Amino acid sequence: MSYIEKEIEEQPAIIHSLLNRESENVIQVARAIRQFNPSFAVVVGRGTSDNAARYAQYLLGIQAQLAVSLAAPSIHTVYGVQPKLSRALVIALSPSGEADEVSQVIADARAQGGLTLSITDDPNSSLAQMADYHLLLGCGKEKSIIATKSYTAQLTALAMLVTAITDNRDSYEALAHLPDLVARTLAGSESILGWVQRYRYVDQMAVVGRGYNYPTAFEISHKIRELCQITAEEYSEADFRHGQVSIIKQGFPVIVIAPSGKPMPLLVDLLRNLNQRHAECIVITDDLDISHYAQNLIALPPNIPEWLSPICAVVHGQYLAMQLALAMGHEVDVVVEG
Amino acid sequence: MSYIEKEIEEQPAIIHSLLNRESENVIQVARAIRQFNPSFAVVVGRGTSDNAARYAQYLLGIQAQLAVSLAAPSIHTVYGVQPKLSRALVIALSPSGEADEVSQVIADARAQGGLTLSITDDPNSSLAQMADYHLLLGCGKEKSIIATKSYTAQLTALAMLVTAITDNRDSYEALAHLPDLVARTLAGSESILGWVQRYRYVDQMAVVGRGYNYPTAFEISHKIRELCQITAEEYSEADFRHGQVSIIKQGFPVIVIAPSGKPMPLLVDLLRNLNQRHAECIVITDDLDISHYAQNLIALPPNIPEWLSPICAVVHGQYLAMQLALAMGHEVDVVVEG
Repeated sequence: MSYIEKEIEEQPAIIHSLLNRESENVIQVARAIRQFNPSFAVVVGRGTSDNAARYAQYLLGIQAQLAVSLAAPSIHTVYGVQPKLSRALVIALSPSGEADEVSQVIADARAQGGLTLSITDDPNSSLAQMADYHLLLGCGKEKSIIATKSYTAQLTALAMLVTAITDNRDSYEALAHLPDLVARTLAGSESILGWVQRYRYVDQMAVVGRGYNYPTAFEISHKIRELCQITAEEYSEADFRHGQVSIIKQGFPVIVIAPSGKPMPLLVDLLRNLNQRHAECIVITDDLDISHYAQNLIALPPNIPEWLSPICAVVHGQYLAMQLALAMGHEVDVVVEG
Repeated sequence: MSYIEKEIEEQPAIIHSLLNRESENVIQVARAIRQFNPSFAVVVGRGTSDNAARYAQYLLGIQAQLAVSLAAPSIHTVYGVQPKLSRALVIALSPSGEADEVSQVIADARAQGGLTLSITDDPNSSLAQMADYHLLLGCGKEKSIIATKSYTAQLTALAMLVTAITDNRDSYEALAHLPDLVARTLAGSESILGWVQRYRYVDQMAVVGRGYNYPTAFEISHKIRELCQITAEEYSEADFRHGQVSIIKQGFPVIVIAPSGKPMPLLVDLLRNLNQRHAECIVITDDLDISHYAQNLIALPPNIPEWLSPICAVVHGQYLAMQLALAMGHEVDVVVEG
């Protein structure tokens, strides 16, 4: 078994232990945030962590009514300027805890009196030490160069954080079911093996989501680019609505992330449009009523609350990207020079 | 002449008249902003306007020390939630002034007491009427379905705004030269005709920028997707530094936006890496010392201040996308069904 496959499979157990280990700590962090009463939030991360930051924008925006800025670290590092962060909650996402550009943003925020939180996998890392608060992912360093388990751990930590901020009983209960939901998702991922060969010669793909799962579209296309070394591009359903759907011609493979939730009617519209264009739709959903739109469907377990669905949906995307890379003849654990 | 070609050529004159017409108005807006003393800024736009919003993030961050959040309109529209905006400067970008999702964000911000500014091309539009302040682009409605002149007008309006906020003499002087710089850029765009046929059969491209010109990478790849109906993806130089460069194989066409400025050393590193990978580099730059890295170079006029270079660099990208579309046999003014 490759490192990446092993790490994909570790995810339910990592999420389970994260939920238990950090449950008290996250309540302290949430208390500090409520006390600080930030005017807005800034989230900073690079690569996969930047996609986790996008999830934070929806999560904190929808559930904690916090406007979220995804930091542009080069403002701090390349231009040497500090935007005003004194009234901001600033969250750093970096599994290693050593991302230089991210550290600079946290250092600047602290110096200004902003409230800083780092979410890392190393309690002794620079970021863990320098931020006011720290949440430990506990996912273990990835031996694969492809980030998988650190992403779902980051999303889980963010979901725990917003639950502690809102102190909502339903959210706590939903979180408790998350490890089981991810395990059941993973059990369903194997269905991909039944049809992945069909895409052996694909050289480009599009990945579409909306709302909570727009970040999932970024992360799945990121995984496909890294693992399959083909072009894969993320879109919001809204982009396609406003004309960009014109790139989709007959047979163009489009992954549509469509778990039950508020954007579903918009996504059904999109699927209808894609079908009219004879696109090749791969649909990630728990709603089997839309299966006729899909050339291939990857089923999610039923009853996933929409806000937690990104943690499940991305697992299918990780598995698909890995299996597609194998079908294409790539060695998935080889280090690719940066 | 097609509509789009005509509209690309109108840009210097539009920028000239915008600078004159709104010069007093923008000083009033800047005064209101200084008085309001926002904790942060939110910028909201869709499609091309979202890329102008990205420019605002760098511009307001670097020059006005304002952290900028690019709004996720679906939080307001799909989820029906209002993030806290009472301490925010909220800027809406919409040439028509009628983008529904954008209007919802402005309505929510006003209701909360945030300071709102709309930048539109229609003084009678909903957005012009509903925001506290309004800047008029004066670019005229685009007859092409492809946005070109509205983008550079939006960037110019934002550059005027930050200049009025900082009240910096050098910036005022630089702005005064902008119409001439854009006209000289445009005169240089024709060199593209000498080599564009080479890319007739390209089916994917990457576009890379950093800092102020990262938004330019988004906008140029957006134009290429729309006009050429091929996959084109934007990257930050930092993404490539962190591993995503692995998608670049021999002959892969990469547009590198490299005007003189702070990110130049990073971009030269990148060009060296791309050369080692035998990528096909098309470089937009004023620095002829880096021409040996480029298969084809599109020259910018000398002495463009970096913060204004996105307004020039994108013009080359617009022209390239249009000429490439023509080389590929697309009718550039045909309406593509959304």
